[in-house]
Amino acid sequence: MNQAVTACVIVIGNEILSGRTQDTNLNHIATTLGGWGIQVHHARVIPDDEDIIVNTINEVRTTYDYVFTTGGIGPTHDDITAVCIAKAFAVPVIQHPEIAERIRQRPAPDDIMASRLLMARVPEGASLIDNPSGGPQGFAMDNVYVMAGIPRVMQAMLSTLEGELQSGFVVRSHTIRAYTGESSIADALAQIQRDYPSVDIGSYPFLREERYGTHLVIRGADTDVLTTVADAVMDAVRAIGEEPENLGLDADT
Amino acid sequence: MNQAVTACVIVIGNEILSGRTQDTNLNHIATTLGGWGIQVHHARVIPDDEDIIVNTINEVRTTYDYVFTTGGIGPTHDDITAVCIAKAFAVPVIQHPEIAERIRQRPAPDDIMASRLLMARVPEGASLIDNPSGGPQGFAMDNVYVMAGIPRVMQAMLSTLEGELQSGFVVRSHTIRAYTGESSIADALAQIQRDYPSVDIGSYPFLREERYGTHLVIRGADTDVLTTVADAVMDAVRAIGEEPENLGLDADT
Repeated sequence: MNQAVTACVIVIGNEILSGRTQDTNLNHIATTLGGWGIQVHHARVIPDDEDIIVNTINEVRTTYDYVFTTGGIGPTHDDITAVCIAKAFAVPVIQHPEIAERIRQRPAPDDIMASRLLMARVPEGASLIDNPSGGPQGFAMDNVYVMAGIPRVMQAMLSTLEGELQSGFVVRSHTIRAYTGESSIADALAQIQRDYPSVDIGSYPFLREERYGTHLVIRGADTDVLTTVADAVMDAVRAIGEEPENLGLDADT
Repeated sequence: MNQAVTACVIVIGNEILSGRTQDTNLNHIATTLGGWGIQVHHARVIPDDEDIIVNTINEVRTTYDYVFTTGGIGPTHDDITAVCIAKAFAVPVIQHPEIAERIRQRPAPDDIMASRLLMARVPEGASLIDNPSGGPQGFAMDNVYVMAGIPRVMQAMLSTLEGELQSGFVVRSHTIRAYTGESSIADALAQIQRDYPSVDIGSYPFLREERYGTHLVIRGADTDVLTTVADAVMDAVRAIGEEPENLGLDADT
């Protein structure tokens, strides 16, 4: 089996921290990377503040295999991500000729073009992340991938990285639905977790059509082990007099 | 004017990092605390891992006035938040009599009750956060507030803290809608931001009924200054030949 490959997501933007905007980028990145065999192990939401961005990037880029940032690469004064990444890597900011070329394809008066060209700023040595939505590209500096904050643009950028990143094992999930409280099955689950330390068993209570229940989710890389553990979990549900529903692999509940 | 009072939100749970669950707790906490005069300056999403939880709590509780955690206080083996908070504060874990009393009000066989009573674990010295949704209470240890991960339970717990926390100034927002690209107004916005450093001007592009535009959001504590800056922003929009829409204070866009 491959090694685990890990990622950290940094969501940059005052609007997320103020509550003005509900972040959905972390969820999309986590799901997408998970499918590629990269596990998001950590995420942060930080403000548009130069020192905080620089220090955060320098802290996490040595801890995780990959860092993905969203936000702060537009043309306005609060778009400081490119400058901060350059500072984190102690390199100058340059205007990337390919991004500038794409920006210049759409004509504009000089002053507006000058603002738009701020989106061509990248740290010296950065490579590009293409942007199939048509706007300026994102960039990668070493293991730090810098993407837009607007979800559809971020998603377009991320999609271009498929097959381009180092990947480890893919973690899959097997879900059992049980109309029982968590407490009724807690002891049995804990024992199964001890018996199978290579999987990660989670229990997530729900209210569905006015009935309380628990989704029992077994996560791991080996589907044979997942099946074995799922069987054990279903037996544990039956042992308390409930009939489990086996939702199978990668169920969307 | 009061001082700023700051908060950090720690979302604990593998299910958020895997993408299985879309977090909404950060947004609710940020919006609610903002209304109470407490600014969320930082947020993290971390896994159900003892060392990571303990180290994270000890890092952030000295940096921010308040820390709010969600997740990991249920009755199963992956609910380790109470134990971790106790470890962070270097105190023993106790069974809190008031939580235990509430749990015992709903009868259950001994083994299930034993699991349920795990939800009564708190660090020695903790005070309670009531839970109007009827389940076991959350708890506060010093400036760290520990709440459930299920949104409706977390929201019920948080609501009980209204008026109980130290508060600073309330940051309000004034929103201008302009059907213009960000680049067209970037220079003018940057100048206004320089002229009024006490506010925070953000620009958020949108696509609405097939028209592109930008929400220009001015955030600050002094509504007179917000009005002055909003007027300046509207003049800047008019200067490029567009008529701005003044959405006013605290607009929900």
